[in-house]
Parts: sequence; structure tokens; C-alpha cells
Amino acid sequence: MEIGIDSFASAMYGRGTLTPEDAMEQLLERIVQADEAGLAVYGIGEHHKKEFLDSAPAVILAAAAARTKNIRLTSAVTVLSTADPVRVYQSFATLDLISKGRAEMVVGRGSAVEAYPLFGYDLRDYDALFKEKLDLLLKIREQEFVTWSGKYRPALENQPVYPRSSQQKLPIWLGVGGTPASFLRAGTLGLPLMVAVIGGETEHFRPLIDLYKEAGKQAGFTPDQLSVGLHSPGYVAATNEEAIADYYPGYAELWTKLGKERGWSPSNQKRIR
Amino acid sequence: MEIGIDSFASAMYGRGTLTPEDAMEQLLERIVQADEAGLAVYGIGEHHKKEFLDSAPAVILAAAAARTKNIRLTSAVTVLSTADPVRVYQSFATLDLISKGRAEMVVGRGSAVEAYPLFGYDLRDYDALFKEKLDLLLKIREQEFVTWSGKYRPALENQPVYPRSSQQKLPIWLGVGGTPASFLRAGTLGLPLMVAVIGGETEHFRPLIDLYKEAGKQAGFTPDQLSVGLHSPGYVAATNEEAIADYYPGYAELWTKLGKERGWSPSNQKRIR
Repeated sequence: MEIGIDSFASAMYGRGTLTPEDAMEQLLERIVQADEAGLAVYGIGEHHKKEFLDSAPAVILAAAAARTKNIRLTSAVTVLSTADPVRVYQSFATLDLISKGRAEMVVGRGSAVEAYPLFGYDLRDYDALFKEKLDLLLKIREQEFVTWSGKYRPALENQPVYPRSSQQKLPIWLGVGGTPASFLRAGTLGLPLMVAVIGGETEHFRPLIDLYKEAGKQAGFTPDQLSVGLHSPGYVAATNEEAIADYYPGYAELWTKLGKERGWSPSNQKRIR
Repeated sequence: MEIGIDSFASAMYGRGTLTPEDAMEQLLERIVQADEAGLAVYGIGEHHKKEFLDSAPAVILAAAAARTKNIRLTSAVTVLSTADPVRVYQSFATLDLISKGRAEMVVGRGSAVEAYPLFGYDLRDYDALFKEKLDLLLKIREQEFVTWSGKYRPALENQPVYPRSSQQKLPIWLGVGGTPASFLRAGTLGLPLMVAVIGGETEHFRPLIDLYKEAGKQAGFTPDQLSVGLHSPGYVAATNEEAIADYYPGYAELWTKLGKERGWSPSNQKRIR
């Protein structure tokens, strides 16, 4: 088992008292500390909102790559549905060269929807977009010269994509929420699975992970090709009580706000015990 | 006057004997040295070919930002015609936060044409694409919320673009070759001008620079708003003879090859004396 940290680049550290430059600097310092502490991986999310600084995760990860030695660096997640898979591959292959083979990416449909109007996509195409762009991304990873056509991106006619990644096969994880079809898709494609437990109890995801493993087995993949990652919010303190006292007020405020945007019920302390 | 270096990220350093990872590492080391030596700026070009590692310049520049203190970091050039100005602004604003206000970009139509089929554009729209995308990029730099519509990119309806750059106005230079209309455009828009002297004698560009200054003046810009940069191939050695002996064989080979692709006459030594 490997342990890592997924983070957003929040513009609100210190409850908005930090400048964006200092918030970015402190994020990079935390990645350096995670590297020195021996953690396996650090991930940066993607948003296109005022509260966040992470609309271009590969750019932030490249700065982190230049200051770290061993830690793997990943998106968490890349909103693939609204991106161009060619540019995504190019950025992460470049990161892979800079970090000498420490780049990964987690690709997802994106639970934050602000990217859709920004890049001219329709939310009604939520799943079709992802399916098509994932297909292209995997093709680019597989072959230097790509011939491909689809509905949401201009066709490629024997076009090469450079640079090529340092790793022979740049790791691409499928980021999933709670949609069973997404677990099936990851298994069928034999892609490693990253489960984003944003809210809810971890153990409720077990049947979905069984679904993934079963789909992967049926598609002919071996158990070691079917890795499972679990992303889960956490906070570490000396005791449970201390952790709750430190963490809960800000958590409640944020999640009540996010919940209103996304139609969830208000936060309560049970969820973080 | 400021002095800097523009470079490509060549995959061919050491005539191809270096691994891509080592070529990238050595490029970053050269940027660190340029910073320590007190140069004003370092630029990285953009290509989408096997011989180059620089399809994502902002990613490389972010790694350089993490390892340098004072040097300004720029694209040289960003092929804006085939890019999404929203993503370009986001990447360079992120670089600007990481570098604490040291980011710039030079945008151009691109003298290398391989980006057009790769991103689904038609070379017949060469100038219309650039004009439209430059208009959007400047609008994004000006305003947090953008309403815009055009022919080559989905419309934006009061969409905000984040993060915002650290510098109040992220420097955007117009990269030009030898096309008089490009000099006129830069002057009329009051954008700083970066003249890419790829081949030919420097002094031949003087009338075009006068054209730029005159157009800028007529559009109401003051002389200090109309900066001129000159990019010129160079090689430094103890004597002229030594420089020619070191530099000429590789130069001749490269430019004869490039010239064939672009319809130039073969290289001769006069051009580099």
C-alpha cells in the first residue's frame, strides 16, 4: 500500500489572508515536505473558480518536480471531458521528463461543472465527452502517430504527439465518484481506479470496487493490473477530539456552501468521526 | 536595454546522444546559470515535432521558476493561433504566481506549421485565427469576467478566468517575423514588439520597426509603451574565427534542413559573420 496526499491549490489558505503568491509558495513547500517525509504521491486538483489557483495543475506540478526527488506527482483529477487530450498528454509527458518518470494523472468527468461553459461544452454531453476523450488519450499514450476521429475534437490523420513520456506507459488512473458505470468502465479498460470519496462512509464503496474487479477480470486483466486507490478527506491531530475541534468549523462552513451548490444535505459532525 | 536568451528545448543536444530527461535537465541548468549571471529574461519556444521537447513551454518554465530567483521567464513564442487563449492565460498566470511576477509571453502565428493539423486548424486561416485569438487573450488579461464571441473558439458569456496573474498586467509581446502587417498590428494595439530575426541581416528590419513606432504613435501610445525586442541567433567564443569554427558545421546542417522544409536558399557562412 502507498500513502499520498491529494490537495487543491486553494486561494483561501489562512481564510483568504494569504496572497495568492504566498498560498502557491506554501503549497509547494508542503509538497517538498511530503517528499522529504517519504510519502509516495502528491496530487493537485483542477478548478476554474475564484477560490482556487489550480486551473493548470501540470504547471504547478512541474514547479514541484523541480524541488522534489522521489515523490510521484499527479493530477487529482484532470477534468478530461473539457480538455484536449493532445494538450493533456503533452503537458504530463513534459512533467514526466522534468521529474524523470514521476508523473501520473487521474482523469475524470469532473464533479465541478464550471469548466463546461468556460470551454464551450454542454453538460448534457457529460459522459459522451469523457468516453470519447479518454479513448483519444489512451490512443496517444499507446502510439506516437495517431489516426482518430470523434465528435468533440478535430480528427487526427497520422499525427505524431510529442514529447513522449519518460515512463514507457504514463500512468493514467480513472477517477470515479459513486457512479457504478464509471467503475465498470475502469474495469473493462483495465485502468487503475481512483475512488474519490468526497463525502459518505468509505465502506459503502466496497460493492462498487468489487464491480470494478469483476469487470476487469472478465475483460481479461490480471489482479495486479487492477490497482485501487482511495481518496478520502482527512485531518491528523494528537487525539480525535483535538482533530474535530481544529478541523470541524472550517469543514462545516465549506461543505455547507458546496452542498448548497450541489444539492447535498447540510454537513454534520458524524461524517467526519 | 535588457539582454536575455531565447532557446528551444531541443531533443538533439549532444547530437541526439543525450536522453530526453538529461536534455531537459541541462536546459533547466542553463536557465539557473542565466539567472545567476544576471540575465534579464529566458524564453522557451514551442514545437510539436520529434526533434523538440517544448510542446508545453509553460510547464518547462514553471520548473525553471522553482529553481530561479530574478530572471523573467517567457514563451518564445506561444503559437497562439492553434491554442485556446483561456488555457494560455491560465497557464501563464499560474507561472506568474509561482515565479512571483516573473512571467511574460510572446505570442505569434508560429513559423512552424505542424501545430495546425495537430489541433485541427486550417493554414488558410493563418492570420484570421491569430487576430481573433489575440483579441480574446487581451480581453482575458483586461477583465476577470469575459463576454466574447468569435469564429474559431466557443463563445464566452460572462465567464471568469482564473487564476489571475500576479502582475497587474501580464506582459504580452507580439512576436513578428518579416510581415509588415504584423508590425502594424503590434503598433496599433500598443503591444511590445518582439522581432524574431531567424535569418537575414538585423539592419534590414529597421524600416519595419519605424513602421511599428509610427503606427503606435498614431494609435495614441507613448514611446515608452512601444518597447522593441530583437531575437537573433548568436554564439559566443573568444574570437570570430573560433566562433565560426565551433558553430558553423551544426548551423549549416540544421538550416539547410529547415530551409528545405520552408523553401529558403541553402545556408552560407556570410549570414553568420
